[in-house]
Amino acid sequence: MCELLGMECNVPTDIVFSFTGLRQRGGRTAEHADGWGLALYEGRAARVFLETTAAANSPLARFLSENAIKTKLAVGHVRKRTRGEVSLANTHPFVRELWGRHWVFAHNGTVKSARALKLGQFAPIGTTDSERAYCHLLEGLRSSFSSYPRKPADLWQAVSSIGRSIGSLGSFNFLLGDGRHLFARCATKLCYIVRRAPFGHAQLSDDDVTVDFSTVTTPRDRVAIVSTVPLTKNETWTHGEPGTMWVFDEGSLRATLPC
Amino acid sequence: MCELLGMECNVPTDIVFSFTGLRQRGGRTAEHADGWGLALYEGRAARVFLETTAAANSPLARFLSENAIKTKLAVGHVRKRTRGEVSLANTHPFVRELWGRHWVFAHNGTVKSARALKLGQFAPIGTTDSERAYCHLLEGLRSSFSSYPRKPADLWQAVSSIGRSIGSLGSFNFLLGDGRHLFARCATKLCYIVRRAPFGHAQLSDDDVTVDFSTVTTPRDRVAIVSTVPLTKNETWTHGEPGTMWVFDEGSLRATLPC
Repeated sequence: MCELLGMECNVPTDIVFSFTGLRQRGGRTAEHADGWGLALYEGRAARVFLETTAAANSPLARFLSENAIKTKLAVGHVRKRTRGEVSLANTHPFVRELWGRHWVFAHNGTVKSARALKLGQFAPIGTTDSERAYCHLLEGLRSSFSSYPRKPADLWQAVSSIGRSIGSLGSFNFLLGDGRHLFARCATKLCYIVRRAPFGHAQLSDDDVTVDFSTVTTPRDRVAIVSTVPLTKNETWTHGEPGTMWVFDEGSLRATLPC
Repeated sequence: MCELLGMECNVPTDIVFSFTGLRQRGGRTAEHADGWGLALYEGRAARVFLETTAAANSPLARFLSENAIKTKLAVGHVRKRTRGEVSLANTHPFVRELWGRHWVFAHNGTVKSARALKLGQFAPIGTTDSERAYCHLLEGLRSSFSSYPRKPADLWQAVSSIGRSIGSLGSFNFLLGDGRHLFARCATKLCYIVRRAPFGHAQLSDDDVTVDFSTVTTPRDRVAIVSTVPLTKNETWTHGEPGTMWVFDEGSLRATLPC
């Protein structure tokens, strides 16, 4: 299994605090030591940091914790391999271009019958069920629209419909970013929090780190964080209902759809 | 304009020495300070480090110079913008997936009529002539073969044919990696060197750094380096003939094609 981390905001925000918590779960406070990745968007483009080693011990992960990069949308993952060897090609998040934007995807769970999922324009590079499911999902979107949908709700419905279909084949918790939205499907376990004014202190569960968000934000900032398990021990996280998908935009939960 | 750096080897090799030279040219010894990128393959998958700042002053670029990552195929770039704003989406190298492998591309020059180049399955995310030319090139390959060509020479011919066609529209020096080959087209300026036994000392042109390759190699290692200008001052580089393309595989120059 693996753990997921997503962030979606209305102003560029650094993910250092949450990523510091996640990376402890990559080999120190949890066993997800078979690789990690972090995708950070700037507009419609994403850059993706990937390694096949344990995030808790990674100099690159430490570098990212010490050199804040601000972004409105991020997707992170620490991997405990189930299917597919430990390799760069099998390391989440996966990224593809569709309609002139990067789509970034990370998965927690196992889609047992992934081999049965039909492919089209997007082909897996590695050997995970996750990447194959992702390619199938993107192909489903591509064949549903000729370009990025003008009505966001049409896209939300399509993602939830394809996600539910894949989810019937196994455990399919996922995060999907498109440069604007963060889609977050709960199959078994997922939670979120939206931080907004009045901002307070937060204390990581996995490391001895506390931050006072009121010193690094403005009153109009909104930051949504999605995680497999709560990353802080003094805040109230909302737990997902299995078979639902959240859609975040501009740091707000915009929809909760059956999925 | 920009500068290119490619490496293609028969054993995993770190690119630290050459990248240290290139990154000086990103704002210190040359004016290419509008971003930089470095793609490093593991098999058919690549990870790409990108920044929109000057490589010479970049903590991330310094980190990569100090934390060697071994690879058989790498493509690097430092940018001096001509067309397209300074942004992540406009930062080379660009990457797309085709036939279950990453294709990585970096360009030096300006393709003036790039807007006239037809697109198909691959859409630009940014606004550069470079990315549009790349999408056109990949579409040309995709429409020429149903899968990765079994005969490498068929692929080489196709890349050179499409490259020549785009090259007729402007200045199109490029590096293209597919996880196996490094394709290097010379429109105006490009050079290469293949380092092999007996290995000797090399001294960077752009920094006070010398390396004794005999201490970090085995007798069967072969490392091809391609660069816009020679990176060392005590070695003999082969300069490209405008309108030709080199193909490197396993650290050897396999073909020089009209392009």
